Amino acid sequence: MVIQPILNLVQLCAQKGITQVFLSPGSRNAPLSLAFARHGAFKITVLVDERSAAFVALGAAQQIKHPVILVCTSGTAALNYSPAVAEAYFSQVPLLVLTADRPQEWIEQADGQAIHQQNIFGKHAHFSFQWPADWSHPDASWFANRTANEAINFLLGSNKGPVHINIPFREPFYPTETDSFNYPTVRQIEVLKPEAKLSAGQLHDSVQFFLGCAKVLVVVGQTEPDLELKNALYALNYYGETVVVADVTANLHGLKKIIKLHDWFLMNKDEAFQESLKPDLVITCGRSVLSKNLKHFLRNAAPKQHWHIHEGGYTPDSFQTLTHIFECKPEFFFKKIGEQVFFSKNEGAAAYAALWQDAESNAMQKLNEAFQVQSQSEISCVKQVLPHIPSNAILHIANSMPVRYVNLLQNLLPPDIQIFANRGTSGIDGSISTAVGAAMNTKLPVFMLTGDLSFLYDKNALWNNHLPSNLKIIILNNSGGNIFRMIEGPAKQPELVQLFETEHHNNAKDIAAHYSVAYFSSTEGSFEASLTNFLQAEQTAILEIFTNKELNANHFASLKALFTHNGK
Amino acid sequence: MVIQPILNLVQLCAQKGITQVFLSPGSRNAPLSLAFARHGAFKITVLVDERSAAFVALGAAQQIKHPVILVCTSGTAALNYSPAVAEAYFSQVPLLVLTADRPQEWIEQADGQAIHQQNIFGKHAHFSFQWPADWSHPDASWFANRTANEAINFLLGSNKGPVHINIPFREPFYPTETDSFNYPTVRQIEVLKPEAKLSAGQLHDSVQFFLGCAKVLVVVGQTEPDLELKNALYALNYYGETVVVADVTANLHGLKKIIKLHDWFLMNKDEAFQESLKPDLVITCGRSVLSKNLKHFLRNAAPKQHWHIHEGGYTPDSFQTLTHIFECKPEFFFKKIGEQVFFSKNEGAAAYAALWQDAESNAMQKLNEAFQVQSQSEISCVKQVLPHIPSNAILHIANSMPVRYVNLLQNLLPPDIQIFANRGTSGIDGSISTAVGAAMNTKLPVFMLTGDLSFLYDKNALWNNHLPSNLKIIILNNSGGNIFRMIEGPAKQPELVQLFETEHHNNAKDIAAHYSVAYFSSTEGSFEASLTNFLQAEQTAILEIFTNKELNANHFASLKALFTHNGK
Repeated sequence: MVIQPILNLVQLCAQKGITQVFLSPGSRNAPLSLAFARHGAFKITVLVDERSAAFVALGAAQQIKHPVILVCTSGTAALNYSPAVAEAYFSQVPLLVLTADRPQEWIEQADGQAIHQQNIFGKHAHFSFQWPADWSHPDASWFANRTANEAINFLLGSNKGPVHINIPFREPFYPTETDSFNYPTVRQIEVLKPEAKLSAGQLHDSVQFFLGCAKVLVVVGQTEPDLELKNALYALNYYGETVVVADVTANLHGLKKIIKLHDWFLMNKDEAFQESLKPDLVITCGRSVLSKNLKHFLRNAAPKQHWHIHEGGYTPDSFQTLTHIFECKPEFFFKKIGEQVFFSKNEGAAAYAALWQDAESNAMQKLNEAFQVQSQSEISCVKQVLPHIPSNAILHIANSMPVRYVNLLQNLLPPDIQIFANRGTSGIDGSISTAVGAAMNTKLPVFMLTGDLSFLYDKNALWNNHLPSNLKIIILNNSGGNIFRMIEGPAKQPELVQLFETEHHNNAKDIAAHYSVAYFSSTEGSFEASLTNFLQAEQTAILEIFTNKELNANHFASLKALFTHNGK
Repeated sequence: MVIQPILNLVQLCAQKGITQVFLSPGSRNAPLSLAFARHGAFKITVLVDERSAAFVALGAAQQIKHPVILVCTSGTAALNYSPAVAEAYFSQVPLLVLTADRPQEWIEQADGQAIHQQNIFGKHAHFSFQWPADWSHPDASWFANRTANEAINFLLGSNKGPVHINIPFREPFYPTETDSFNYPTVRQIEVLKPEAKLSAGQLHDSVQFFLGCAKVLVVVGQTEPDLELKNALYALNYYGETVVVADVTANLHGLKKIIKLHDWFLMNKDEAFQESLKPDLVITCGRSVLSKNLKHFLRNAAPKQHWHIHEGGYTPDSFQTLTHIFECKPEFFFKKIGEQVFFSKNEGAAAYAALWQDAESNAMQKLNEAFQVQSQSEISCVKQVLPHIPSNAILHIANSMPVRYVNLLQNLLPPDIQIFANRGTSGIDGSISTAVGAAMNTKLPVFMLTGDLSFLYDKNALWNNHLPSNLKIIILNNSGGNIFRMIEGPAKQPELVQLFETEHHNNAKDIAAHYSVAYFSSTEGSFEASLTNFLQAEQTAILEIFTNKELNANHFASLKALFTHNGK
């Protein structure tokens, strides 16, 4: 039989321009699978492991800057989506999650693949609509059309994240050979949202306060590459002499005068030094800040005001100083502010900017000297590899140490490289899959820098009949969770190896063979040759770099000591 | 610093005899990890992938028939537990799930690994206690002690399943070198539960009704091996001439007169045949029924009464006929009933039992003839392998086709073999891990029969520094989800290969190499030699059997046709 409201949902997705589907096979979701497949407008990717599939979808949506659709069967399939759904919630990535279900009267009836699916994603789905199992009353179809519109309009709005429709199917739900699938145009609800503009009064007051502050610090949290924002911040930074601090995840590493080495120099807890950098006004935009030292600095900074600029979504008070929320686009805000302050800046601005610039150049000098000493440590390997990544590449970075390394070395990155990392929840569970989803949606090279545990955790990411050849994975293999040897708490515990590092002796060679992926390693032939061959590979490729965990920890500690012990 | 209520929780677990911990590394959960590690009474297994870890814990708890403990860090770690938590809920396996969290004021504050963890398992955890982050008020410690007692007492009671304690930790949470860990005896609340006994009146009425019925049908759902129940049912079946129908998951395959081939002969939808088998009284116990044909039969059976016997938990009305719930142990109930009816059975009982026995022996004869014809199909391979599994073995069976095959061939099983399958949610996501958890907790050989997709989905199950050597995995590799070619709906769709089967060309050889597991296959050398070598392997081993999906589907269809087309 054909369930017309399902075809209508599919048609609405097509009308709204949401045409990429990530489908995990099952029987209960057959009405959805077939409806998407027979429509004609959809690109369907079939992936078996739902945990990975949802992260692939997330990577795809991030890459195309547009919602994508997830479809799974009933039972624990939906629960396997939940890590990626949480990441999408905190990273504000638009996912339309469609889960097939049994009719509710069959829940807790000892029937197969029947679990509690209503609101299964809890607070991590912005909406969770429960569709009816029966369509006899016309209000049921109206309800479906209305909620589908609501869900999709949310995804297309400014406050993004996952939305969920749980759809119970009653048997029989397979079409017969004579059933035909028709997709008439369905009602589409359009949202006309006026552009948010600050009033003249709001702008005037803000500019006055801004100009009254000698020390203005702009801190940009995680933001996908955004040329307009980059331009607005460049102007404010360059012409307005406003200090802009940005982690690598802010995608501003291409801008010269941006502060990039703060995670190094803010290790210095010297009171006078920290005091000298404290701002009167903090302006933030973007999502999370990566640098722990920057977070600590800002939490102790006690600025007069802290403005957060964003269009929508939850407003974090990450530094415990928030006083104003500007509900508009950051690029618009910084452009407007910039126009006003370029030619009438506070006299102290230059002096304050100079303090930050000094700290930055001192740090740079120290690092340059320190890295003169050759080392086979992990951070040295990353330093060696980063400049070889092509400037038009997209770089996905796994959590734990890799994203910290790149942040500490962001000055080495080619300026146009685009940076992505799953910092919404900072898990190690789906980074490789996310990179796969991105690579499937671009012709640009996509690099993935990961530790061994993140790779091994998410190796099902490579279980994909259409693994993109532009995907290049660099694995830093230190035989375990080396981070625990580098952060203070666990490093000092006698249980370090047993409970934290989880030492292993696996490598990725057999996994690469399993998935027919080209494999290069730092121990087979010269490292330089492996790197060259890896970079030139015309298929999906892995470069595995083996390092020694003690050496890694010691070298990293010695670099940190340069900043923590010797003053600024 | 030392958080004493955490040490007290650990001490309470020890006092209550819950001493096995499955730990996934992290920093936020360090107070839990260290408290368990330093106590001395706990066996700790460290596993990185939380999805797999939770299924390993489930397999362990099932095997030792006792609760085990799961410990993970904050963030998506807990969400990765959720598939196994749902399986444990529906399979009533006792898990104490301890998740570390950030203090709640840091949620939605753009901080790392901070998600919404309160009630994260929804209805799939029986309790979800939220512990405080601050312990200054004495009521906080009382609350922790009380809820820990409540959680553990639930796990030790008759109505089992997962319980959850979410524990926020505030920095600093690492102990210093001078901190000492003390575990004084803590208050322990004991539950004294009187044995549930039917009153003389209840028993008399039940027996009278039972004796008034010529046609009594006992249907046993999934039950872990239980000698007392087996004995009680044997007596009722043998001396009482009461028909007992049991899927392989009921663990009654060792009993001769039990009906085992119902999933074959109930394919015959001939009205007179089905009518002749209909019962007056249905008595059920255990969890879910596997055979779809048995379910359909029972839903159309319209018995006068349907009694379900169980001590606690949710009561499914799987056949839409339930009229009485006996809240006592099935073995007690069947023994009591048996004693009363052995010597005064209904005159029609023998005739009714003969009808079922006829159907059973006809089916057996048909199968014997059918299997005379040699085939390389999957079901033939399973038929060939099953008798070689040692009779003292434990057999875990993955969902989808493997569990159906073994059910259809349960007459071939060695009588004492113990059968397990994740039929609570019937997912393909954690069967291998569950078998690993079982094998880690027994010296008996543990066999795992799985399809290729279930194996590939859950291959992180083998990511274990102490992979048990008694684990033997048999993979039926048909290059995809062959079940969809065997069930009616999807088999007829033109999208069968693309959307349902998910064809692949992977095998387990490289995975076996990656994990240093011995590997044998049906295509390397003779099948018999591979089987022999596999059975004799003294380490963890995989036997991969390659089959052809069309042949599998055709042979299976031809076997089914014997029962569906030719009458009884």
